[in-house]
Amino acid sequence: MAKVLIIHGPNLNLLGKRERSVYGNTTLDGINKMAVGHGSGIGLEVDVFQSNSEGDIIDTIHAAQDRYEGVLINPGAFTHYSYAVRDAIASVDIPFIEVHLSNIHNREEFRKLSVTAPVCSGQISGFGPDSYILGLDALKKVISG
Amino acid sequence: MAKVLIIHGPNLNLLGKRERSVYGNTTLDGINKMAVGHGSGIGLEVDVFQSNSEGDIIDTIHAAQDRYEGVLINPGAFTHYSYAVRDAIASVDIPFIEVHLSNIHNREEFRKLSVTAPVCSGQISGFGPDSYILGLDALKKVISG
Amino acid sequence: MAKVLIIHGPNLNLLGKRERSVYGNTTLDGINKMAVGHGSGIGLEVDVFQSNSEGDIIDTIHAAQDRYEGVLINPGAFTHYSYAVRDAIASVDIPFIEVHLSNIHNREEFRKLSVTAPVCSGQISGFGPDSYILGLDALKKVISG
Amino acid sequence: MAKVLIIHGPNLNLLGKRERSVYGNTTLDGINKMAVGHGSGIGLEVDVFQSNSEGDIIDTIHAAQDRYEGVLINPGAFTHYSYAVRDAIASVDIPFIEVHLSNIHNREEFRKLSVTAPVCSGQISGFGPDSYILGLDALKKVISG
Amino acid sequence: MAKVLIIHGPNLNLLGKRERSVYGNTTLDGINKMAVGHGSGIGLEVDVFQSNSEGDIIDTIHAAQDRYEGVLINPGAFTHYSYAVRDAIASVDIPFIEVHLSNIHNREEFRKLSVTAPVCSGQISGFGPDSYILGLDALKKVISG
Amino acid sequence: MAKVLIIHGPNLNLLGKRERSVYGNTTLDGINKMAVGHGSGIGLEVDVFQSNSEGDIIDTIHAAQDRYEGVLINPGAFTHYSYAVRDAIASVDIPFIEVHLSNIHNREEFRKLSVTAPVCSGQISGFGPDSYILGLDALKKVISG
Amino acid sequence: MAKVLIIHGPNLNLLGKRERSVYGNTTLDGINKMAVGHGSGIGLEVDVFQSNSEGDIIDTIHAAQDRYEGVLINPGAFTHYSYAVRDAIASVDIPFIEVHLSNIHNREEFRKLSVTAPVCSGQISGFGPDSYILGLDALKKVISG
Amino acid sequence: MAKVLIIHGPNLNLLGKRERSVYGNTTLDGINKMAVGHGSGIGLEVDVFQSNSEGDIIDTIHAAQDRYEGVLINPGAFTHYSYAVRDAIASVDIPFIEVHLSNIHNREEFRKLSVTAPVCSGQISGFGPDSYILGLDALKKVISG
Amino acid sequence: MAKVLIIHGPNLNLLGKRERSVYGNTTLDGINKMAVGHGSGIGLEVDVFQSNSEGDIIDTIHAAQDRYEGVLINPGAFTHYSYAVRDAIASVDIPFIEVHLSNIHNREEFRKLSVTAPVCSGQISGFGPDSYILGLDALKKVISG
Amino acid sequence: MAKVLIIHGPNLNLLGKRERSVYGNTTLDGINKMAVGHGSGIGLEVDVFQSNSEGDIIDTIHAAQDRYEGVLINPGAFTHYSYAVRDAIASVDIPFIEVHLSNIHNREEFRKLSVTAPVCSGQISGFGPDSYILGLDALKKVISG
Amino acid sequence: MAKVLIIHGPNLNLLGKRERSVYGNTTLDGINKMAVGHGSGIGLEVDVFQSNSEGDIIDTIHAAQDRYEGVLINPGAFTHYSYAVRDAIASVDIPFIEVHLSNIHNREEFRKLSVTAPVCSGQISGFGPDSYILGLDALKKVISG
Amino acid sequence: MAKVLIIHGPNLNLLGKRERSVYGNTTLDGINKMAVGHGSGIGLEVDVFQSNSEGDIIDTIHAAQDRYEGVLINPGAFTHYSYAVRDAIASVDIPFIEVHLSNIHNREEFRKLSVTAPVCSGQISGFGPDSYILGLDALKKVISG
Repeated sequence: MAKVLIIHGPNLNLLGKRERSVYGNTTLDGINKMAVGHGSGIGLEVDVFQSNSEGDIIDTIHAAQDRYEGVLINPGAFTHYSYAVRDAIASVDIPFIEVHLSNIHNREEFRKLSVTAPVCSGQISGFGPDSYILGLDALKKVISG
Repeated sequence: MAKVLIIHGPNLNLLGKRERSVYGNTTLDGINKMAVGHGSGIGLEVDVFQSNSEGDIIDTIHAAQDRYEGVLINPGAFTHYSYAVRDAIASVDIPFIEVHLSNIHNREEFRKLSVTAPVCSGQISGFGPDSYILGLDALKKVISG
Repeated sequence: MAKVLIIHGPNLNLLGKRERSVYGNTTLDGINKMAVGHGSGIGLEVDVFQSNSEGDIIDTIHAAQDRYEGVLINPGAFTHYSYAVRDAIASVDIPFIEVHLSNIHNREEFRKLSVTAPVCSGQISGFGPDSYILGLDALKKVISG
Repeated sequence: MAKVLIIHGPNLNLLGKRERSVYGNTTLDGINKMAVGHGSGIGLEVDVFQSNSEGDIIDTIHAAQDRYEGVLINPGAFTHYSYAVRDAIASVDIPFIEVHLSNIHNREEFRKLSVTAPVCSGQISGFGPDSYILGLDALKKVISG
Repeated sequence: MAKVLIIHGPNLNLLGKRERSVYGNTTLDGINKMAVGHGSGIGLEVDVFQSNSEGDIIDTIHAAQDRYEGVLINPGAFTHYSYAVRDAIASVDIPFIEVHLSNIHNREEFRKLSVTAPVCSGQISGFGPDSYILGLDALKKVISG
Repeated sequence: MAKVLIIHGPNLNLLGKRERSVYGNTTLDGINKMAVGHGSGIGLEVDVFQSNSEGDIIDTIHAAQDRYEGVLINPGAFTHYSYAVRDAIASVDIPFIEVHLSNIHNREEFRKLSVTAPVCSGQISGFGPDSYILGLDALKKVISG
Repeated sequence: MAKVLIIHGPNLNLLGKRERSVYGNTTLDGINKMAVGHGSGIGLEVDVFQSNSEGDIIDTIHAAQDRYEGVLINPGAFTHYSYAVRDAIASVDIPFIEVHLSNIHNREEFRKLSVTAPVCSGQISGFGPDSYILGLDALKKVISG
Repeated sequence: MAKVLIIHGPNLNLLGKRERSVYGNTTLDGINKMAVGHGSGIGLEVDVFQSNSEGDIIDTIHAAQDRYEGVLINPGAFTHYSYAVRDAIASVDIPFIEVHLSNIHNREEFRKLSVTAPVCSGQISGFGPDSYILGLDALKKVISG
Repeated sequence: MAKVLIIHGPNLNLLGKRERSVYGNTTLDGINKMAVGHGSGIGLEVDVFQSNSEGDIIDTIHAAQDRYEGVLINPGAFTHYSYAVRDAIASVDIPFIEVHLSNIHNREEFRKLSVTAPVCSGQISGFGPDSYILGLDALKKVISG
Repeated sequence: MAKVLIIHGPNLNLLGKRERSVYGNTTLDGINKMAVGHGSGIGLEVDVFQSNSEGDIIDTIHAAQDRYEGVLINPGAFTHYSYAVRDAIASVDIPFIEVHLSNIHNREEFRKLSVTAPVCSGQISGFGPDSYILGLDALKKVISG
Repeated sequence: MAKVLIIHGPNLNLLGKRERSVYGNTTLDGINKMAVGHGSGIGLEVDVFQSNSEGDIIDTIHAAQDRYEGVLINPGAFTHYSYAVRDAIASVDIPFIEVHLSNIHNREEFRKLSVTAPVCSGQISGFGPDSYILGLDALKKVISG
Repeated sequence: MAKVLIIHGPNLNLLGKRERSVYGNTTLDGINKMAVGHGSGIGLEVDVFQSNSEGDIIDTIHAAQDRYEGVLINPGAFTHYSYAVRDAIASVDIPFIEVHLSNIHNREEFRKLSVTAPVCSGQISGFGPDSYILGLDALKKVISG
């Protein structure tokens, strides 16, 4: 069973507790349980990690190479400016897939640009918690690819 | 069984025949067969449509409302400038999901902007033919809502 | 009685059926009937044409020169990027007037720029179906000029 | 009979006396007489006001609310930079319609942007003195609306 | 007791009468009374001035130097384009503080830039009528400096 | 004898009938006859195609691969925005040469950018109908390689 | 007595020790003491927090919701690029007020844009340590609001 | 003796009293006396006018046509945004020459653009009060043309 | 026999010796011989000139008017910034044609803009040494006009 | 008698011989004679220099410091891009005045920016040959200043 | 012996392990050993620090002032957006030198801008591990200054 | 002993004689002597060349290939616009290193962009004359590479 990691970026710990009209009622725990469950159904052992710290996320990305076969990452707001996270992803040889809960294309102008997507295999956005489920399916395919 | 439509935009008819290093060897027929098969497995009756004509695509989008419960669209190059396709999508009350074979974020600068994504439910890019499979799964979820 | 043509661009066939909060309840048929009736009252024989196809609209513009004394055009989304429609208008010696149902100045940023207006006699926007009525009055004046 | 006001912005007092190749031979007085006459024919009592002073125009806009049912405004060059006039229009509850004698879309680049149009009901440009006649018709419709 | 002046820019005379959802119910008179009262409590004799005329505001700024120890200014829409008001403030040796009722950073894009703030001591925005109260406190501190 | 195709984009059917001061008196028929004649003199069998429809032009580009050894294309206004035509050219393995009647560098600003030229072998502009003659000579050389 | 938190962003720990010509001689301790003292005078129990770490600041913002009725934040340089801090503020239901010691409008160009201000109640800048005093007064009013 | 007018724009009344390090010690009166004296020496009867009001300056420009053979204008900050002053100058048939005391090219970025210079005969900047003397000499030459 | 001049701009002396993957193996001498030979075949006496000095190229352009009936110019990198070369071309009454060996549209972004093309009759790019042959043919046609 | 130098930049040697509708009939010799004559009348011994070479102009600027008390420079097209000429002027301790024959503000967009003016004392443009006469007067004043 | 610190920014811990085609085979340890060795040879006692955390780097910069006479910093991706690191460097009175392994000028567009370089003494980029050696030599000179 | 060349661009001949506050007191001769001396100490025979002429610098770059093993170049102001110098460097197969006396990142905006650096091995800026010393060390390493 392939091991994969889900990295949740800044503010995602508040999911389901904040701005529910935008992000829905599901908590991060809820998403994680769904993801672990869905993963085990498709042959992926799913670990999860969340941090509001850019440095911790970079450390985690670095460490992923030896422990996981792929990473699902929702960089949160780092998506739009963290070239350091981008470089971290680029420096690791396993595939990364970028996911977003909301459709980043119909919100504020600054959310349209992703500086991390160019170094990921692909990007999925707009499906709420299902973005993670779809992301795991995609990761499974890319790993098996 | 819910009926859905896949719309392939300009130049996708050449898939598998052109620029294989970028787009892979699968032909459009191959993708369509995969999609129809995958759809029937998840309870979606999948129709397909391809055109190089913006007008025909708009007509097809309009007609979709009464015949389908959702649409998967790969607008091809129209993604980057066709406000007419955007308005067509916005004018129809069923959900649209935008898919791309390649990762549009790591190619030419002009491919980073999607004028159609803001009026879709979500966007999936970078997984080759699997973008369509993931897109159908996403569509299923959105329709089942 | 002077003959004039009204050209409706992409997506206007859905008028009154879509996004009514933005565009109101009047259908294109309704507008056309109003226009024909209003035209006959001010000495204009009004023909109408709608297409979602840029090519067909260009063909129709070309053909207009020998059949009509003026054209009222609502280029829809082509307003914002179709330099081909612009060139078509510029190539015909009869006057064109651009009309828009909604006020294009208080919507998305991209709707503020019209690439077709510089080659028309004038532009009228924001009055719903009445934009066409005012446009016919304007066309009458320009033709009588 | 509904009372409406026409506000002419800076430099319009010179109409018919300056740059006739651009603006034609009709004087402001001529336009005003046409407008008053046309107004009375369609049930509008038309008052006119011209000033080269942004402050006086703002004062007049403020005062219009209690005296008129709608305003036709040609902001002249203020169209392109006076956010103060824009705010004045936005602060008054009666409808405003923006008119221009010339087609602002085929002149200098800076004339393409109107900062006042977003807070008006609509905009009419390019028909010479007839822009005012059409504007009154439009105002009549908006008021009756 | 130090004498200070409050200058209210264009459209602020309508305060409490217009767009109450944005600006609240307090009238300019109400603000002025609050300000005079608050001023006297902290040792400031407060005069007030409002004009919709850029020229009058510049004249008033010039005259302030000999009569006041500091000025609180809400330049209204002049904030965003009046380099003449900016130069006026720069030409006077007493301190100016810029205040805004609304949070200019979460409104239209053009309101984010202040051309006058760079020549003021500081800027306070977003607290409704309290912006003036806070502004007076700030002015008191700057004068006492 | 090598077969080549000339594709004329939108509005070129009006050549010699419109804006003669800009485009001269030669009709498209005249250009086509010149081109066929010139072609036969240099060993090229020349077919011609004109359309105002982007979709038809894309279809024709696709079909060209199996029938022609090279294509001369005047994309007309599509030059400046049709990424779909660009992608069509890129997807076909035979050489394309872009030609323009007028010098696109000394007209409106928007005509300076060609989105199609980067995927052509080269570009020739400014020589009126002779642009096509020179283009055929160039195509002959490129094919002969 | 309402509890409020002051968050000092990166480099503010050096206050009074660095660049005194720009930021003055008061140390962060000095400011904190002033703030606590002033707060207790107006019915606010003031806690303080400083960090150079974006992640720690985000964590602190999250934790503030259950412990404080409002937050005064000087995001330091994060003001200009940290969309993660912005999202953190937006995700918390208590009011935030942004303060700056210096007038950010008359320094380097990049300091003119605040990405955090749009999600705060208001912004105060330019009054040195008094920006905090004024900010507490503002926060008191907003909380009492 | 030809009559000419000097128009001084906003804030120039403070000349010699403000920012002397930038603008020098000469007052506006001083400049006017120099100008009148210099004018009479070269056959120009010089009138002067100063206002901080854009409207008054426009009125004065309009009135100049019948009373003067040319105008020297220092539009002050209006140089950089007043399209209304620009249109006023363009509407008058006598020559205008733009002068500036300081070198507008080595100050703030916004001072590099003059919206009024394109409709003047020429521009002189950077010579302090001598800009006016040189401007009168230039005006003399242009009038004598 | 008409005399024409070919001007080769900076770095073209290294042709065939440098970056052969981009520019091919033909040396400048080779091109010159081809050009002289081709010219004599079509009735053009061809002189050649190469310099890395902008000043010498301007001098040569000036001198061309009295000695040649037309000029073929490959401005090399001067194409992208030398307004002085542009002005030189504009100041001479004989026709200029701009040629480039490589397709300037598919290289670095800065090579897309030609500041010299707007003052030439036309532009030919992308055909290697054949760009010169085609250029001579074009020049012949323009001269024969 | 103070010695000054006039430097004429690229293409000015063609004055009076080229584009007379723009630059008039006076030759450079004519201007030089006028300038020498005018100079001797106001106590300036005038030398002249013209070159189309940026390097020669820089050399001449360097040499000017020991031989002249000031320089009048018409940098021609170098005005708009030669940072090398700018640096040369900045490196010399005598005053420079920039002059232009035409009004650079009402020509092509690129002529509006001068990269050399910020390091000159002032700029005079738009008066034809008289720009030099006025420039000498200005130089006289600056030197005497 | 002067003490200096080398700060390695995010992702540099992976040096020699990732993207070797870009960054070479030397590990960070290797670089550190080279640096310490080289330092001791030129009279510098070299300490090293690496972190992926912006906050830790800022803390380390602050602490450097009392312990070191200068700092060599490779800010990694922080170079391009971390105004917080910039402010940290600016707040410390010892010299900083910025180094980069690769030539940041010939990579992605976003790497051309350094927000930290303006507050450093100088910048060295493109020499692989030798950038550090050269940087130590430079630091030695600056300290000895 | 490897032979290398130092190329000094425009205005560097004035070093130590001009703007000493910016560039210091060392003359170019001084730098050259330091460089020759330092070079001989590290096994480099150093030649020097300075010119204010872009053409001469290009000629010298071309000639360097056969005579030197590497070049140190300070392109002066050519750094910011001379694509011709850039192309010259790119056309030569020996390594180039770009050096600057001052820190180009903390001066005028236009100095931040180097058009020549992308084709050099690396760039060193900000160390005064020591930039050359460090540059020679770097060149030595690159040559020995």
